[in-house]
Amino acid sequence: MSILIKNGYVIYGDNLEVIKADVYIENNEISKIGKDLNVGADYVIDAKGKVVSPGFINAHTHSPMVILRGLADDLALMEWLQNHIWPIERKLKPDHIYWGALLGVLEMIKSGTTTFVDMYFHMEEVAKAVEKAGMRAYLSYGMADLGNEEKRNTEIKETLKLLEFIENLDSPRVEFLFGPHAPYTCSPELLGWVREKADETGKKITIHISETRDEVRQIKEKYGKTPVEFLDELGFLKDDVVAAHGVWLSDKEVKILAEKGVTIVHNPASNMKLASGVMPLKKLLDAGVNVALGTDGAASNNNLDMVEEMKLTSLLHKVHDLDPTVADAGTIFKIASQNGAKALNLNAGVIKEGALADIVIFDFNKPHLRPITNVISHIVYSANGSDIETTIIDGKIVMLDREVLTVDEEKVLDKVQEIIDELR
Amino acid sequence: MSILIKNGYVIYGDNLEVIKADVYIENNEISKIGKDLNVGADYVIDAKGKVVSPGFINAHTHSPMVILRGLADDLALMEWLQNHIWPIERKLKPDHIYWGALLGVLEMIKSGTTTFVDMYFHMEEVAKAVEKAGMRAYLSYGMADLGNEEKRNTEIKETLKLLEFIENLDSPRVEFLFGPHAPYTCSPELLGWVREKADETGKKITIHISETRDEVRQIKEKYGKTPVEFLDELGFLKDDVVAAHGVWLSDKEVKILAEKGVTIVHNPASNMKLASGVMPLKKLLDAGVNVALGTDGAASNNNLDMVEEMKLTSLLHKVHDLDPTVADAGTIFKIASQNGAKALNLNAGVIKEGALADIVIFDFNKPHLRPITNVISHIVYSANGSDIETTIIDGKIVMLDREVLTVDEEKVLDKVQEIIDELR
Repeated sequence: MSILIKNGYVIYGDNLEVIKADVYIENNEISKIGKDLNVGADYVIDAKGKVVSPGFINAHTHSPMVILRGLADDLALMEWLQNHIWPIERKLKPDHIYWGALLGVLEMIKSGTTTFVDMYFHMEEVAKAVEKAGMRAYLSYGMADLGNEEKRNTEIKETLKLLEFIENLDSPRVEFLFGPHAPYTCSPELLGWVREKADETGKKITIHISETRDEVRQIKEKYGKTPVEFLDELGFLKDDVVAAHGVWLSDKEVKILAEKGVTIVHNPASNMKLASGVMPLKKLLDAGVNVALGTDGAASNNNLDMVEEMKLTSLLHKVHDLDPTVADAGTIFKIASQNGAKALNLNAGVIKEGALADIVIFDFNKPHLRPITNVISHIVYSANGSDIETTIIDGKIVMLDREVLTVDEEKVLDKVQEIIDELR
Repeated sequence: MSILIKNGYVIYGDNLEVIKADVYIENNEISKIGKDLNVGADYVIDAKGKVVSPGFINAHTHSPMVILRGLADDLALMEWLQNHIWPIERKLKPDHIYWGALLGVLEMIKSGTTTFVDMYFHMEEVAKAVEKAGMRAYLSYGMADLGNEEKRNTEIKETLKLLEFIENLDSPRVEFLFGPHAPYTCSPELLGWVREKADETGKKITIHISETRDEVRQIKEKYGKTPVEFLDELGFLKDDVVAAHGVWLSDKEVKILAEKGVTIVHNPASNMKLASGVMPLKKLLDAGVNVALGTDGAASNNNLDMVEEMKLTSLLHKVHDLDPTVADAGTIFKIASQNGAKALNLNAGVIKEGALADIVIFDFNKPHLRPITNVISHIVYSANGSDIETTIIDGKIVMLDREVLTVDEEKVLDKVQEIIDELR
């Protein structure tokens, strides 16, 4: 299978150079980029007035939580969790998770995400949904033992079951990773097991770190150190760790994260909506930490739109630092694309010869994206996910002219509505 | 002319009650709302799975500045203004303003705005664009005399010219208002003239107040008081004043604004992008000040999407106050609709019998707006302006199924591209 994308503005290479060029895809790779490519292709896309961009990498979400979208907002964290989110989550069966994940994946494909990192439960169902939709994902079962040995063994069993399921699925787009929930919900024993298994299997780890002030306080009380110090002293922190949030970090913690090569995934919408706080973006970037971007789950966002998330990121840090020069459009674009790829050791997040063909096309023939002056600025500050017209993942056209080709969208919308009407 | 919107979820009345009902429009008014209305209509819209919402009121923008979209970002305020914005603005001719305004109006219609308040120059051109597009707008010429009497007389002449032009236009949708730029750019004499003329004509006033810390400092140095105190002592502040920004306000100023019935227009995207600061939303609302919402100009946003602006508003204040319960979805929706109408004494911003038929229809048949659980939450937190499918202004269908019926969209996009390619 080969695809030729003609006449578009192409966001080329690591430095986001915008060039008018054609992009030629063979199998699952970008094979040629240049002016007026004279090649035959199975499929030709005319991208005149459009922008050919690397697909975005949503480095932290809980995809099935789209089922809970809009169910509870504007509440204090504990009331939100205990009285609204957890009671419904307890009712979620594997079938619900399948349809929820399919809705989440549909939403991501339609808003320009080509890879996501997930943590939830009944994750085999998420793997099936990802495989069906033609999406790329890294999937973890969220483990929490709360210091209880029996629970720990159950969590380990669930994790190994998912690992085996994904190995058997043998998809080029579906990867496993370990998902210990957080330092305040996982015992040192469980975290130790994860580190050992990750070293043994070469799989990555995703975890929540320092999302709220309260959890930092808890860890300090329990262990007499900050969460990052605690994890570091366990030997847990290496460059295979993709840690979500990092809102409340000391300077010492930032230094450790940089030294160990840990990726921090920023989730500004969720941190803002739940009033968790503002992560020290500039400090992390200045220290050389790899920062990626995520939407978190839809219950605290309430969408999975990485394009919208980019604008939020930039604007939040400009006003927080009272400095309009921080979080410039180029930096933010990289955070949403190539930094996510770096976190996952994925040969994507950038358009260049030899990279995986994970590509999205923005339709710039719209009032809010004209005049065309600065393509990166328009994507970060003016666009939203609905401007994505075409999505290519692993060299396959998954959405064309806003129609997702792999999933029956109407059926998914109806099914998820039925589920929530029944559950609540 | 009559329109019947059938089977939608209708956001009804001042309290945003969501009901399944039909909406019947006769001439420019909403005449009936109810289940299965048995009436004949010139035009019937099926809104099954869709949401019938009041149109949004963009209470502060500079519509022609869409021409400058993406031209300069991530810069310190003075560098941005002096080296990028002003040099291009000096080159703008009336014809450029016409096409720019048309692009801005197109963008607003396509993202759910049915009324906007504008301040710029060559405003007769903006009036023509508004009239052509079938939009509703309140238009002001931005006056700044910098204490110079000759300049003051020119500004007054320009303002009276616009007033006369709009009176002669005699459109039910195009209104004039006075536009003294700001306390730091207008002399007390000019401000006094505006107050007198506003009292005489019954026209409203729009002005910038306390957008940046620096201008507050300037006013304090010059007059020995804060901007709001200064304006109040001039007798300038009454309930016909629609003041943009209000970022840096003392408690005393908040109290004065409440007492005088001044509307403050919040522009969160612009305040964040330019790093101006965070306006004290909760304090203003608690004091009873009427707060409306605006996008400001596209050069500092960089779009005119009121739906996106609602999410920004809520999330910004939650994280700034570290309180997830502030700026709840209902409050924010009202700020973007009925509070804007209140500022303008406009019988709109709400769907009820007898109100002006300024209505937009959201298409909820999309992954990011499902399942349908809480309509207001979905609009504020999950939607964006591209979800608007149909826009009705003053009882006329201006956009249907995302096609604007009053303007040749492709021509406007091309024209504006030509202009910026020539100017820069």
